[in-house]
Amino acid sequence: MKAEIIAVGTEILLGDILNSNARFIAQELARLGITCHYQTVVGDNYGRLLDTVTLAFSRADIVITSGGLGPTDDDITKEVMADYFGRKLELHEPTWEKILKYLEGRDYIAESNKKQAVIPEGAVVFENNNGLAAGCAIEQNGKTAVILPGPPNEIIPMFKESVRPYLEKKQEVTIISHELHLSGIGESAAAEAVEELMQKSTNPTIAPYAKNNEMLFRITARGKDSEECNAVIKPVIDEIYSRLGRYIYGNEEETLESAVMKDIISRNMTVATAESCTGGMVAARLINYPGASQAFINGMVTYTDESKHRLLGVSNDTLEKYGAVSPQTAEEMCLGVAKASGTDIGLSTTGIAGPGGGTKEKPVGLVYIGVAINGRVIVKKLLNKGSRERIRTASAAAVLELLRQELKKLED
Amino acid sequence: MKAEIIAVGTEILLGDILNSNARFIAQELARLGITCHYQTVVGDNYGRLLDTVTLAFSRADIVITSGGLGPTDDDITKEVMADYFGRKLELHEPTWEKILKYLEGRDYIAESNKKQAVIPEGAVVFENNNGLAAGCAIEQNGKTAVILPGPPNEIIPMFKESVRPYLEKKQEVTIISHELHLSGIGESAAAEAVEELMQKSTNPTIAPYAKNNEMLFRITARGKDSEECNAVIKPVIDEIYSRLGRYIYGNEEETLESAVMKDIISRNMTVATAESCTGGMVAARLINYPGASQAFINGMVTYTDESKHRLLGVSNDTLEKYGAVSPQTAEEMCLGVAKASGTDIGLSTTGIAGPGGGTKEKPVGLVYIGVAINGRVIVKKLLNKGSRERIRTASAAAVLELLRQELKKLED
Repeated sequence: MKAEIIAVGTEILLGDILNSNARFIAQELARLGITCHYQTVVGDNYGRLLDTVTLAFSRADIVITSGGLGPTDDDITKEVMADYFGRKLELHEPTWEKILKYLEGRDYIAESNKKQAVIPEGAVVFENNNGLAAGCAIEQNGKTAVILPGPPNEIIPMFKESVRPYLEKKQEVTIISHELHLSGIGESAAAEAVEELMQKSTNPTIAPYAKNNEMLFRITARGKDSEECNAVIKPVIDEIYSRLGRYIYGNEEETLESAVMKDIISRNMTVATAESCTGGMVAARLINYPGASQAFINGMVTYTDESKHRLLGVSNDTLEKYGAVSPQTAEEMCLGVAKASGTDIGLSTTGIAGPGGGTKEKPVGLVYIGVAINGRVIVKKLLNKGSRERIRTASAAAVLELLRQELKKLED
Repeated sequence: MKAEIIAVGTEILLGDILNSNARFIAQELARLGITCHYQTVVGDNYGRLLDTVTLAFSRADIVITSGGLGPTDDDITKEVMADYFGRKLELHEPTWEKILKYLEGRDYIAESNKKQAVIPEGAVVFENNNGLAAGCAIEQNGKTAVILPGPPNEIIPMFKESVRPYLEKKQEVTIISHELHLSGIGESAAAEAVEELMQKSTNPTIAPYAKNNEMLFRITARGKDSEECNAVIKPVIDEIYSRLGRYIYGNEEETLESAVMKDIISRNMTVATAESCTGGMVAARLINYPGASQAFINGMVTYTDESKHRLLGVSNDTLEKYGAVSPQTAEEMCLGVAKASGTDIGLSTTGIAGPGGGTKEKPVGLVYIGVAINGRVIVKKLLNKGSRERIRTASAAAVLELLRQELKKLED
């Protein structure tokens, strides 16, 4: 079964609002295992909307629209769909009564409000518990139109309450999908490592995605039930683990920071951060994990030489001799913050995020990151390119990845 | 001149990522006065992408694509466009050199990276200053394809630096647009304050946009030259300033943190941060300003009671009597960090970011923020809704806005 999504609204075409409904419907369709090959945005224009609907039905069995159910003249989605299927619009009494009740006490009830109470004859009605315009579905000759309101606070509950069960009944296949999250390897290198696997495997499918400074594989299976899906997924996941296991930090909703924090907590260890160029980003990511308070003791953002000395105990000799951006300073920072905070683990970053401040010896993008675990230190040199923001976020990701790898080694 | 937008990517069709590029391009087209009747999303599939491009060119003069320029086999946008126009792909040496330089030092350079360095022969190349894949434009028989990368941090600067001037030249009209950035006021309230101005003014147009925890007005004029544009823009900007000046923190590329940091530096003052629930976000934003080292001394991320006491000197009495999430603790935190760091200004945040940890008296979303300037303290209570991430970012924004307002008062 194939579906298409059409968002109706000139305000989306003008970029005034984000088309978040299309994403929501797309997620719902993916969950239901209904294939969706196209999403379209079209304005409040009769001819163009009718063309779009006609094209969509030439390619798909189900067309889901959002928007264009309001009371004004340019709200025309129901009108276009009724014409497409050759049906009349008729007043839906329960909806009209609801609108009258809503408008009770107003001096004046606009005739245009009646527009929101009509539906194409014979349609299945989806009640709107958060607004006036009802949604509906028309079925004819194997084609189904699902017509939904535009405001997210109306379409989302309506979909969950009424449209999801309506579509589930139409579907007779189970879809299961798993994610593997990787850090410390680029999308190209990771995809290449499993290339022939991706090409030859059609069920499950294997798709690589780039994320900020990370990447992920999504493995998706279809079958008659979850058992059948899981049976084809397992060997594929095992094979990816055998090739890329050292880069895989977690599954599904896991993030690099949650994986690292869980590992630290499970070891009964504690952590503190000392950041220069990343200026708080490493701490902010660690604290993104809701249980962070069990292991995160404190962070220091030491942006000046003086604060590196005062708060972390970096020696003035080191700062003078090697400079703040040096492996020696990175080492003293992570050791120093662990000592000052009484933690098992100390993390540090120091570098030149730009755009100014670079020299030939120490160019913009040069960052040293340090990880101290129980007094043992590993320092790594990074050379990142791009904007100040990019250099900083990449450095924060790199120190979390370095910590993840070093924690793993503790098991050996 | 008519344009269409095509976002390429299966991950958008699956709802994995939001199609924010389409909105960005739509806003840019609206600014340029280029009509756009359709936006389409299509997956990484040769036949369907070619069909979509063919259909779009049957309706429009310009087709702008985003996505599908990566190194993997399913990145095919350039291949499809080259075939549509009957052109070959050829290696673009400057891009290839850049990629090689970027990958320098890696153990292994994937052959697939070369894919990112090819462009259709005869294309205009748009340099990518934030990633590997160059963008490009192909012109043929009155039709123009503009092929851009997918990651927002690549496409947005590329559009502003290269595509905007490229399209402006085609338009033969001068478009000038100014942005006013507001903080501390919601989009509806701000729009209401200038509503009749927005309705009556057609040149320039005035459009309100919501940003993360902020909003902006974009004022756009069209004319035969920049003088003509600026002449109609000035009175409108003056009028908006007269109504909403206290909320306007800057123009054009200004950010709230750069406005605040510039103000601090111009006063020869210094600042330090003490963060609990925001966990480094406030420091990270302040340090986002490239000249931050002139005024930012250090930050403390004090996530535990013990660290609030040890690093900031918050009294154990206060922590015991009122709790860590209290106006008293927020006050002692901002005073304490300024004292410990020897700065004129101290900022603090302490709250319950959730999802757990809320009570009836102290619900999730309750955050106290504090600003100390030369020993004088202002504490503000926030009640934000939403996810942990949302509560944290809103709190970080609120403390910067509170600081901005308090700095302004120093002039009185």
